[in-house]
Amino acid sequence: ARVLPAEDTVDSNPFALFNKACLKNVFTVLLLFIYLLLTAVAVFLAYQTITDFMEKLNHPVMSVTYKEVDVFSPPGIALYPGTAQLLSCKHHYHAHIPPLVTSGKPQPGDCVTEEVTYTGPYNNHTVKKALVVSGPTDVRNREVVFLQFSQNETEEDFSAITYMLFDRYNDLFRSVDRSAFMQDCERNYSMWTFSGGFRTWVKMSLVKTSGKANESMEFRQESSVVKYNDKRSGSEQKGVQLFFVVFEWRDPYVQEVRDIVTANPWNTVAILCGVFMALFKAANFASFSVKWVIKIRKRHLRNRNRELNHISSEIQSR
Amino acid sequence: ARVLPAEDTVDSNPFALFNKACLKNVFTVLLLFIYLLLTAVAVFLAYQTITDFMEKLNHPVMSVTYKEVDVFSPPGIALYPGTAQLLSCKHHYHAHIPPLVTSGKPQPGDCVTEEVTYTGPYNNHTVKKALVVSGPTDVRNREVVFLQFSQNETEEDFSAITYMLFDRYNDLFRSVDRSAFMQDCERNYSMWTFSGGFRTWVKMSLVKTSGKANESMEFRQESSVVKYNDKRSGSEQKGVQLFFVVFEWRDPYVQEVRDIVTANPWNTVAILCGVFMALFKAANFASFSVKWVIKIRKRHLRNRNRELNHISSEIQSR
Amino acid sequence: ARVLPAEDTVDSNPFALFNKACLKNVFTVLLLFIYLLLTAVAVFLAYQTITDFMEKLNHPVMSVTYKEVDVFSPPGIALYPGTAQLLSCKHHYHAHIPPLVTSGKPQPGDCVTEEVTYTGPYNNHTVKKALVVSGPTDVRNREVVFLQFSQNETEEDFSAITYMLFDRYNDLFRSVDRSAFMQDCERNYSMWTFSGGFRTWVKMSLVKTSGKANESMEFRQESSVVKYNDKRSGSEQKGVQLFFVVFEWRDPYVQEVRDIVTANPWNTVAILCGVFMALFKAANFASFSVKWVIKIRKRHLRNRNRELNHISSEIQSR
Repeated sequence: ARVLPAEDTVDSNPFALFNKACLKNVFTVLLLFIYLLLTAVAVFLAYQTITDFMEKLNHPVMSVTYKEVDVFSPPGIALYPGTAQLLSCKHHYHAHIPPLVTSGKPQPGDCVTEEVTYTGPYNNHTVKKALVVSGPTDVRNREVVFLQFSQNETEEDFSAITYMLFDRYNDLFRSVDRSAFMQDCERNYSMWTFSGGFRTWVKMSLVKTSGKANESMEFRQESSVVKYNDKRSGSEQKGVQLFFVVFEWRDPYVQEVRDIVTANPWNTVAILCGVFMALFKAANFASFSVKWVIKIRKRHLRNRNRELNHISSEIQSR
Repeated sequence: ARVLPAEDTVDSNPFALFNKACLKNVFTVLLLFIYLLLTAVAVFLAYQTITDFMEKLNHPVMSVTYKEVDVFSPPGIALYPGTAQLLSCKHHYHAHIPPLVTSGKPQPGDCVTEEVTYTGPYNNHTVKKALVVSGPTDVRNREVVFLQFSQNETEEDFSAITYMLFDRYNDLFRSVDRSAFMQDCERNYSMWTFSGGFRTWVKMSLVKTSGKANESMEFRQESSVVKYNDKRSGSEQKGVQLFFVVFEWRDPYVQEVRDIVTANPWNTVAILCGVFMALFKAANFASFSVKWVIKIRKRHLRNRNRELNHISSEIQSR
Repeated sequence: ARVLPAEDTVDSNPFALFNKACLKNVFTVLLLFIYLLLTAVAVFLAYQTITDFMEKLNHPVMSVTYKEVDVFSPPGIALYPGTAQLLSCKHHYHAHIPPLVTSGKPQPGDCVTEEVTYTGPYNNHTVKKALVVSGPTDVRNREVVFLQFSQNETEEDFSAITYMLFDRYNDLFRSVDRSAFMQDCERNYSMWTFSGGFRTWVKMSLVKTSGKANESMEFRQESSVVKYNDKRSGSEQKGVQLFFVVFEWRDPYVQEVRDIVTANPWNTVAILCGVFMALFKAANFASFSVKWVIKIRKRHLRNRNRELNHISSEIQSR
């Protein structure tokens, strides 16, 4: 029953009362300051986290993945032989091409081919005749497609046959309007050439780019050229030019390029939860410690008051 | 001593009792609802965080890094000259090849070479003879290896010498079973050719792919071909075909492709900590505010009761 | 007034006092253990999060981005024709080159060119004469630059014209010291060649690598070579070699390679906040549950004591 009246005594003491009020104000200001500091820290962390999220969202990483395949779906090889004539088209394995027989003469082949006539997509609107061949598929056994062409003496400046590669031969095969399909291909794909009098060995690899809206397929090529040793008689050789081309897959990898967004909004929210929790906890600690300091201070004042009361009562009792 | 009985009075008042019980039920339901909502939010965030983790785990980003080197370790250049003969092999710098002297004749060289005979890895099991040359290393000074071959008139259809590049010449040098080593190489690496009558300049670059289990090295090549101006006499020229090839590093960068898993399980756990802390805190707030509302309501009722008591006692005292 | 003295009774009971002290010690140890365990978990998570951050910081992901452009700024094509002479330089569209007229004779062109003479950057310090041509820009309409050169019978071993590609023709144009500019280019860029008697079709693509300090531009090339059908008279043909080269953009994409640091320090700090919050909360729970167990135990002891007191008082009253 002593404690409470003692406190009342303190409170009723005008000096102590003033002292306590002052103390309380000081600590309130301190507490407010700590609160503000912590809020600033939390807001800064939150800002940084959100900025990082926005940054990641706006600058997606393009991921390049190499997907291994066992077999490719047959690509389409569109050849524009012009006046040249297809002599043979044959599949070979282990990148081994047997010696030529009766070169310059048509030979049996085993290719799936398709002829498409269409008007060129550009302003001159010339009629184009494409010979589309189904390409190699068995990359493990190094399947190659070997084509031979012959061309009579021409007025062309360069002995060249143009070709174009597109993703799937079957897309053409299944297409209802093959002319439109080929026009589209010509607009999208790049043209290449190979030379007469040489064997051009084309190693193709596929690059698949998945954009936001559409998916595009593109071929990368590495080619090497070797001279043809013409063993035909001079007259025969003079009039007719021979073309040899080999198509092979470079390696069993399809390069896939896709946007990957490393920013995850929920992840960001989850991180922000942690930040605000830390803010609350720190505020808690601050308020707790301020209260504790006030309590200590009060007890100290009380004890001093009690002592003063004790002394004054002793003085009175004398 | 007044306060507690006052509350007892409230509790004993049947209407107030009913009122308080009803209030408590309503707030319990509200509290439960808030709890459920918060749990749902936390579970959703946790689910998203875990999903993101799994997504990242299953779709590793393939990182393409370009590592700059000062010198390369010498690559192995395995040449399959067949009936052709090595005339010279020399290192040059600054990509400058001095004019040829006595072309078609063997000349002194400075290459480290090694001959390996082995049976081909494919079903025909032909014996293959590879001439392995230690490639250029000093990419900064544009070191090139220049090789010349001559081949007598052959029955081959194409004037071609096949070659293959592998990662380190020293691996062959240190290998105990060189035939097995070369068989392995042939299975894994791609074959290339260069043509007679031309100088083929091969620019190689190295791509290192680190998969989960194994590491593979692969060469990318860009080659350019220029015609040889044969200045030998007609008869000499007729019988013997000359081959020239130059190997050079494209640039001082090794492209390293590796899987990088951006998902870190501990990171995910750390993020989840934040989520669940937020849940607890929010639940705390909810329960605290509900208790506070109950307290306010109680005090209000108590005050009203006291007033009623006061009024009734005044009535009684009259 | 009954409750407090009852507790005093318990405290004054030596056996119960010992019991309570023992219980308190056991729970203090338990609490300490739980605290340590939680601290270990939090430290582990923090360690993992920081390790992940350091790992990401030290192994930046190189991001490969494909930026689509509508037009390229004209690249610089530096040609080193040596004794060869430029016959014509013309821009064509849709990758279509019309038939040659009066081949071997100079023809009107429409190229922007610039001649620069400078000393080579390597030790031999030869004077070099570069003919710099402004390259194609309109990739959408497949703009090509077609150049023809003629060279009189030379003593050179190989019919080759060297060229070099650099990023922007305008950089040379605006440069104050063009010789120094070209020297720099030669040091940084790779040299290429094309052959006489052939048409070399160069498809270029641009790779921009942004390192920490500097930014580098590099060209990737895919080239194909086709034979020139020389229709000039024998004598004319003998003495003069013709060169044809075509420069075209491969595709409208600029490949940009940049380091992206997936590690964000503030993000890591934010995650750590969550971890430490979880630690505090768990510690809170542990201390709360231990206090609760102590309370339960105390109440149990008190109840037993009360019963004992009751029994003893009953015994006394008998």
